[in-house]
Amino acid sequence: MTDRIGRIRPLLQEHDVQAILLTFLPDIRWACGFTGSNGLLIVQHDRADFFSDGRYAVQARRQVRGAEVHIPGYEILRHVAEGAFLDGVRRVAFQADHTTVAQWRDWQERFPAVEWVPVAGLLQRLVGRKEADEVARIRRAQAVTDAVFEHLLAVLRPGMTEQEVAAEIVYQHLQRGAEKMSFDPIVASGPNGALPHARPSDRRLAAGEMVVLDFGCFVDGYASDMTRTVAIGEPGEEARAVYALVRQAQEAAIEATRAGISSRALDAVARDRIEAGGYGEYFSHGLGHGVGLQIHEWPRLSYHVDDVLPAGATVTIEPGIYLPERFGVRIEDIIVLRDEGHENLTASPKDLLVL
Amino acid sequence: MTDRIGRIRPLLQEHDVQAILLTFLPDIRWACGFTGSNGLLIVQHDRADFFSDGRYAVQARRQVRGAEVHIPGYEILRHVAEGAFLDGVRRVAFQADHTTVAQWRDWQERFPAVEWVPVAGLLQRLVGRKEADEVARIRRAQAVTDAVFEHLLAVLRPGMTEQEVAAEIVYQHLQRGAEKMSFDPIVASGPNGALPHARPSDRRLAAGEMVVLDFGCFVDGYASDMTRTVAIGEPGEEARAVYALVRQAQEAAIEATRAGISSRALDAVARDRIEAGGYGEYFSHGLGHGVGLQIHEWPRLSYHVDDVLPAGATVTIEPGIYLPERFGVRIEDIIVLRDEGHENLTASPKDLLVL
Repeated sequence: MTDRIGRIRPLLQEHDVQAILLTFLPDIRWACGFTGSNGLLIVQHDRADFFSDGRYAVQARRQVRGAEVHIPGYEILRHVAEGAFLDGVRRVAFQADHTTVAQWRDWQERFPAVEWVPVAGLLQRLVGRKEADEVARIRRAQAVTDAVFEHLLAVLRPGMTEQEVAAEIVYQHLQRGAEKMSFDPIVASGPNGALPHARPSDRRLAAGEMVVLDFGCFVDGYASDMTRTVAIGEPGEEARAVYALVRQAQEAAIEATRAGISSRALDAVARDRIEAGGYGEYFSHGLGHGVGLQIHEWPRLSYHVDDVLPAGATVTIEPGIYLPERFGVRIEDIIVLRDEGHENLTASPKDLLVL
Repeated sequence: MTDRIGRIRPLLQEHDVQAILLTFLPDIRWACGFTGSNGLLIVQHDRADFFSDGRYAVQARRQVRGAEVHIPGYEILRHVAEGAFLDGVRRVAFQADHTTVAQWRDWQERFPAVEWVPVAGLLQRLVGRKEADEVARIRRAQAVTDAVFEHLLAVLRPGMTEQEVAAEIVYQHLQRGAEKMSFDPIVASGPNGALPHARPSDRRLAAGEMVVLDFGCFVDGYASDMTRTVAIGEPGEEARAVYALVRQAQEAAIEATRAGISSRALDAVARDRIEAGGYGEYFSHGLGHGVGLQIHEWPRLSYHVDDVLPAGATVTIEPGIYLPERFGVRIEDIIVLRDEGHENLTASPKDLLVL
């Protein structure tokens, strides 16, 4: 881990503040290594202080790098106030998109001399550029997910319910050392596949149907995320054509993925192909999203946003076509952006598998 | 489902506002029945309006009760502004503990004529009084969890890792129809049991050890939650004594559970027993918490808070003793408060099981 506290410090000047208060746990983990469920990190020019409660006394002292550890017990904020950690500080930047109004009002009451400066996406561009050891963890998480997909191909059969398949997906991940799933698996068969966020139901897989499988896990804190669409028996002509179109759009977008491209331009690569194929209105969501300590993080790949993507950004590329009441197809890989080109962390095959 | 929008309306007067804006999805589900992942509910004296996006057009119209459904597409807030839904409204109460500062600032910008009134715990006392059909769902979720515990007793053996046991717990819940786990299972063996929030590790269960098992699931949106502590082979004298003391404290607290008691008084019933037994300093957390559409909700049973508990409140009772580096014992049931007494929704046995 590089000196991440040091990489945060330039933000002090950028936002014209004397301190930055971090409350969002994935960002705190990124900044100082703490993995527990309660903590607060204050970064100033000449010091950095981490606070947690008694449950994490041993763990915090073992994990935290680059900040002094304080374990004040039940009331952390009172300790910050009484310990004079913010004495002389006039302006503090905080995470506007990860702080509730109730928390903010509590701070305002306890620190009446401080001006609290709300900043949305405070660390997103720092956290978004993954380092080699972070990519290695995402790769390990995706390797578990790839292995589970290979296992699934051997057990999927007509008559299983979507819920049974989802249970198998979860079990196989946990058996292979995943900490937990990175989101609830999607197993969407036949017409359910036309709902991009379908929940597994008691519907049984039937011969001739397409099945959308979307799942991932956490390994060592980092997430995997993959979608494959398979056919249970011969799927028919239009399903094959739609599959080929989604695959072509996805591979074209991956081909275009490199540092310096904008999120909107990358989305357009896939969207243009699908529109040219006549299914534009059925690609009803953005192209993808960043993946790391969170399953969904910056950057969002979408026609709504125009961020320039840096080297190290690690994103999903996941176009889909959803035909209401009929079926859906989505294909998703995780891609790391490099200065020249990209690397695909997903190993599972993309030929249409007919089981 | 009773007229829940109608039960919200008295809050308009209580907070001296013309509208209430709900953004927290479990509370929105409670109020109008919507189960999707994006929505907004505005309650006024003479109308109630629900907003979501295109993914939920069909689902929202099928599910929502007591409010008019609007599907404006991508930008919900713009639609609320342009649709004049808040015209003439001067003050709006919102959920201060479930709204980010970034959201609040967005509202302030879009509705400059509105005064936004932050209220923490806005619906908690309404949501906290469970109706019969809600208790029935918690009972069904707990029945799944009880069945999984019974299954576990047959498969637990020395040599299994904590992670393997956790994988089995998740798999068995999903196989029995649980929608998902209500939290990541805790499987804490030997000294790991002394950490109240231990994560399953690759540590193997060994003969003579106590194992803390804490897990639950969601069925039809409602959560279960149970802890049992079992012994893998003969556990030794102090472990037996500590187990007996925790059980005595837990059963005494359940015995005292009824509408009208305060959270602090109920916590004290268990805490006094454990202190009298000489282990007071090792009961390092509160007695329990409300359970419903969320795994942790109002009321908190703790010496820090002094809420009077109403009939219908559904809470966990879960004292524990944690001996650092040695072992832990926790026993947890879900209890519904009645005007006279209570009902225990948990069926799993509480005799010390030596496997």
